[in-house]
Amino acid sequence: MKVRGFFIAKIRRKLNRMAIERLETKARMSRIVKHNGTVYFCGQVCKDATKGITEQTSSMLEKVDELLLQAGSDRKHILSATIYVKDMIYFADMNAVWDAWIPQGYAPARACVAAPMARDVLLVEISIIAAQINS
Amino acid sequence: MKVRGFFIAKIRRKLNRMAIERLETKARMSRIVKHNGTVYFCGQVCKDATKGITEQTSSMLEKVDELLLQAGSDRKHILSATIYVKDMIYFADMNAVWDAWIPQGYAPARACVAAPMARDVLLVEISIIAAQINS
Amino acid sequence: MKVRGFFIAKIRRKLNRMAIERLETKARMSRIVKHNGTVYFCGQVCKDATKGITEQTSSMLEKVDELLLQAGSDRKHILSATIYVKDMIYFADMNAVWDAWIPQGYAPARACVAAPMARDVLLVEISIIAAQINS
Repeated sequence: MKVRGFFIAKIRRKLNRMAIERLETKARMSRIVKHNGTVYFCGQVCKDATKGITEQTSSMLEKVDELLLQAGSDRKHILSATIYVKDMIYFADMNAVWDAWIPQGYAPARACVAAPMARDVLLVEISIIAAQINS
Repeated sequence: MKVRGFFIAKIRRKLNRMAIERLETKARMSRIVKHNGTVYFCGQVCKDATKGITEQTSSMLEKVDELLLQAGSDRKHILSATIYVKDMIYFADMNAVWDAWIPQGYAPARACVAAPMARDVLLVEISIIAAQINS
Repeated sequence: MKVRGFFIAKIRRKLNRMAIERLETKARMSRIVKHNGTVYFCGQVCKDATKGITEQTSSMLEKVDELLLQAGSDRKHILSATIYVKDMIYFADMNAVWDAWIPQGYAPARACVAAPMARDVLLVEISIIAAQINS
């Protein structure tokens, strides 16, 4: 009976997962949107846009860490990342920070293209999709 | 028994959800693709590309409304939006229309970068992922 | 009992699907990440960047075919594609290859914008999300 109860609870959790849960919702966007065990995040940029690409990438990924934690996920559960750099001259330096940040064996799918962002001083932005832990 | 039947029907609906359903399928793309309670939409642009950014954003979002309805979703069930503007000079005007269009408390995750689109006259394009209602 | 066992096996498969499976994982990215019946792929470019847009698109889609097969999916199970071209002057030639590659009736949702890629010689890149077959 215990096994059966556990099994039913697991299914019930799955069914409830289909509801949408939002966190940090403002007029323009939510920073976190959960649905069906998948978490969608709003585009993240650096904390201090006066800094160079290395520092911008570092502080952007710090913000990603904070959001992942808040969403019930973590670096090891990122499914897909789309990275935008202002210019491809920043590609290698961004990658150096990124490669060190990714836990070995847990790298997500990734695409990176060059595109200008909301403010001219922004050099890098990331948009990720992650899985909820124990979803 | 009634409760159990309801429960089984709910699970069955979930299992069937894994099939892919496409709407408005042409040689190049489908405008709507559904899978596992999630709906993927093809990039939407304005109805009249001779107009300015405000009108282009408005008519683009009208098209999104129409597609959401057709897909069994709505503005309140958008999970994630990627917005492309031709140039960041259009960012503020696009946002003004967007912010008013989003129902309070239901904003999706969002990213916005600048990138040229299929035709030079296009100023804004949106790519969204939404949840099916009662999925 | 047989029917019930089949039913339970099907549910169990669904529950297990929530685990993340990665293939071709390196320090920077995984080429394939599976979760909940959905497969995320890393951005794909051509095999030979000295070639023109037609050849680059063809060999890029060959690589997509190979990855789809490896992931337990195929062309008919692509849910969404984001295509980046270096410049919109390549749009028509890219589309000619793409349109012929897509099986009739199975086109995914799609968006295409212009954006520079990792190396200057790259003319086209694609980022896709697909469904697992028999997920």
